[in-house]
Amino acid sequence: MAGTDKRKADAAKNLPEGPAFILVVPQLGDNIGAAARAMLNFSLTDMRLVAPRDGWPNPRAWKAASGADSILDEAQVTQTTAEAVAGLDFVLATTARPRDMVKPVYTPEEAIRRMRAHLAKGGRPGFLFGPERTGLHNDDLALADAIVTVPLNPGFSSLNLAQAVLLMAYEWNRAGDTTPPAETVMAADTRPANKAELLGLFEHLESELDAASFLRPPEKRAGMIRNIRNIFQRAGMTEQEVRTFRGIVTALTKHARRRALEDFEAEKGGK
Amino acid sequence: MAGTDKRKADAAKNLPEGPAFILVVPQLGDNIGAAARAMLNFSLTDMRLVAPRDGWPNPRAWKAASGADSILDEAQVTQTTAEAVAGLDFVLATTARPRDMVKPVYTPEEAIRRMRAHLAKGGRPGFLFGPERTGLHNDDLALADAIVTVPLNPGFSSLNLAQAVLLMAYEWNRAGDTTPPAETVMAADTRPANKAELLGLFEHLESELDAASFLRPPEKRAGMIRNIRNIFQRAGMTEQEVRTFRGIVTALTKHARRRALEDFEAEKGGK
Repeated sequence: MAGTDKRKADAAKNLPEGPAFILVVPQLGDNIGAAARAMLNFSLTDMRLVAPRDGWPNPRAWKAASGADSILDEAQVTQTTAEAVAGLDFVLATTARPRDMVKPVYTPEEAIRRMRAHLAKGGRPGFLFGPERTGLHNDDLALADAIVTVPLNPGFSSLNLAQAVLLMAYEWNRAGDTTPPAETVMAADTRPANKAELLGLFEHLESELDAASFLRPPEKRAGMIRNIRNIFQRAGMTEQEVRTFRGIVTALTKHARRRALEDFEAEKGGK
Repeated sequence: MAGTDKRKADAAKNLPEGPAFILVVPQLGDNIGAAARAMLNFSLTDMRLVAPRDGWPNPRAWKAASGADSILDEAQVTQTTAEAVAGLDFVLATTARPRDMVKPVYTPEEAIRRMRAHLAKGGRPGFLFGPERTGLHNDDLALADAIVTVPLNPGFSSLNLAQAVLLMAYEWNRAGDTTPPAETVMAADTRPANKAELLGLFEHLESELDAASFLRPPEKRAGMIRNIRNIFQRAGMTEQEVRTFRGIVTALTKHARRRALEDFEAEKGGK
């Protein structure tokens, strides 16, 4: 998806507080970098790394972060999960449904709802993400208040580490987002057509269609006109588009008249 | 996230119909593979490729698909976007908000709501995803009914192709998912404790605390008991856990009695 703002250095400044994203023994620098990128995409900045396998700093992470360097620069690194979660008071572990422990399991949507409620009361929430191959150890799960499980195709349920981070970050942002679900964008130099302009187009088109004997038989004329008008209404045209369409009607009829005139002259000249 | 089922060959069988995912001039085989993986994670199978830059089939795609081979094996390849969308009747283009065209713009959630409504009426919906560097060309956008834009950090809004696919697939699945938002999982060989079992634990603990003169002064006893009982109620214990906790109380008091007895005997012997 295009649209990256080049002011990357500022992209992590002045963002609202969000949950910590704790990667426990992450194996690949590429995944750490991709996770940082996904976090910053959704305005999240608190990354924590527990004993990254290939050491830290890992240049591959910065390469994969596509500019989300500030997230990696500021990442806290600890040797144990216990140290990473020490300052938090509501910790959710992202993993498949456990088979052998008693634990609340939330959907991502519900997890974010509870995290946001927690944060609003002054709490410090965070997510735990396990190593790529093995997932979180049961000792890490025991540090968590609950588990978040992304509902997946039961026959194909392996989610990449950075993708798991992306989905939690996306849900976090979605819950706080105020973008209208649906709206029509338009160029700055135009505006929606008003009804007078639309009526002008309708009458222009219909007078030409009458001249062309298109709106026949007479008893069907009113219904045909309603159908044609509804097409234009549904299109939600701008003032500029109404003018363009009137130009189209004029062009088509003018061309037809000119051709007819030429044919007539040719016929006359040929006689 | 762990939990991959090894029966990958079956993972794409018997899945409900979903939207087509059309990658327009995708550049990297890795991204095509990661997109296939993301689709199958959320039970989506209809991938279409328009003029993949590095040709097709591209072995890198299969490598990155982590077993979602069936999606790649069955992918339709065309030379133009027009061919890829020809059989569809509701096409949404994933891109940033356009600056120079009049087009409805939906959030992912709203886009999926409309797509599902469309599919339910027998329609054939699909998504367009643009090339990694440039995004969708305006000519492709003109083939789309509307645009889907993921709300992103305005200072850092570049989303990887496979990530854009993942988010749409996730939203599609989320809208049809019936997983309870929150539930407590437990091992198969236990069940939630009933109130008689909990009361047994409370009374056991409280009698020992009375014996230890912990519940004092008397006017505070009732309030202290209520607070302690509430801790256990909130924990939502299983029958097995209640038994474990009664064992803990017994162990602690027995140990204390034994130590006291030993001390007493030692003192007596010392005299």
